[in-house]
Amino acid sequence: MKIAVLGTGTVGRTLAAGLSLAGHEVTVGTRDVAATLSRTAADPMGTPPFADWRRQHQDVGVESLSEAAAGAQLVVNALSGSGSLSGLEAAGERNLAGKVLIDVANPLDFSRGMPPSLTVSNTDSLGEEIQRRFPGSRVVKALNTVNAGLMVDPAGLHGGEHTVFVSGDDATAKAQVVALLESLGWTDIIDLGDITTARGTEMYLALWVRLFGTLGTPAFSIKVVR
Amino acid sequence: MKIAVLGTGTVGRTLAAGLSLAGHEVTVGTRDVAATLSRTAADPMGTPPFADWRRQHQDVGVESLSEAAAGAQLVVNALSGSGSLSGLEAAGERNLAGKVLIDVANPLDFSRGMPPSLTVSNTDSLGEEIQRRFPGSRVVKALNTVNAGLMVDPAGLHGGEHTVFVSGDDATAKAQVVALLESLGWTDIIDLGDITTARGTEMYLALWVRLFGTLGTPAFSIKVVR
Repeated sequence: MKIAVLGTGTVGRTLAAGLSLAGHEVTVGTRDVAATLSRTAADPMGTPPFADWRRQHQDVGVESLSEAAAGAQLVVNALSGSGSLSGLEAAGERNLAGKVLIDVANPLDFSRGMPPSLTVSNTDSLGEEIQRRFPGSRVVKALNTVNAGLMVDPAGLHGGEHTVFVSGDDATAKAQVVALLESLGWTDIIDLGDITTARGTEMYLALWVRLFGTLGTPAFSIKVVR
Repeated sequence: MKIAVLGTGTVGRTLAAGLSLAGHEVTVGTRDVAATLSRTAADPMGTPPFADWRRQHQDVGVESLSEAAAGAQLVVNALSGSGSLSGLEAAGERNLAGKVLIDVANPLDFSRGMPPSLTVSNTDSLGEEIQRRFPGSRVVKALNTVNAGLMVDPAGLHGGEHTVFVSGDDATAKAQVVALLESLGWTDIIDLGDITTARGTEMYLALWVRLFGTLGTPAFSIKVVR
């Protein structure tokens, strides 16, 4: 499948590499291709320049957000929470129309310091904001409860014995995402319901950030025991 | 240990019975003892009258909130989220002073319909509100991520292979609560940190209520896989 991964940070890179490895034709979308490729220094978080990563992943295309979205059958929002809506605007409503849009972002608010709080929660969610803004797209919230490495390699933790969730209004879109998740190795996939259930997985981040602090690693997940 | 369980709903009753069974001297605290004992009809949720339950649990005392708190070494807040602060006021700051106060309540807001949202979240929590209001007490948030049955019988689900969390500012108080949890059968207990980490477990409720809807049972929990 032709997949556009919007976002060139750790999450975007890891998803692009993982989906490419799984046999998909992947293009990464970025706001400014020339700027993204010309950076030679690590960012403030210590993430190496995108061009370094790209040299080892020549099979992954790099295009503008709109070009990547236009050419894809399925789009993944791997932008930051705060950059998601503007980035998807740049990708273009027309280029996203009718397509499955997997939203893996979390609306983390770092403005109050660490650990982050959420910019939207409780009675709304980023997943819902995106679905409302792009009513012609079929938004499926997924994978936002684990770090990038686990998203594409769930089996790397306890043989994959942990849970991932999907939220979305379109049953066909969710079935397609479930199949994609299974192809990545996910075995315990819970369909929480419509896109309002994204509040649940996004608000879980408040526990996630505390567990990250306590466990000292982002390589953890939860298994729903029932 | 002499334990006061404040609240006569399902959570209060189940905790009182479980802690009594574990060998503690338990008194249930209620706003109006005479009214609580005189009710003969089930409540709107279908919970049987307290007096019926009491007949089968003669070992558990019943007193006013203030009497129960005054006589206890450790107090459990098993009141509803919306009734917690007023109930603890009725219990009396002086009667709670210096004591470990286990807060198992969640600030669920049913005013917008089902599933509930939270009355406080993101940058504050009920656990923190209680700690701020009763600075002389040692609040430990715990057990609020599972239903009443699992609180006192974790082994009843998958042999206890799931996780419970504690949050609180006082390390000694948390150690005491951890020991109490272990006596109930909990084996995987994660200390998340200070009382602000109660935001994490309270906000997890947003996922819990959706899982409840999807799974059709409240008898589930999460295991932190790491």
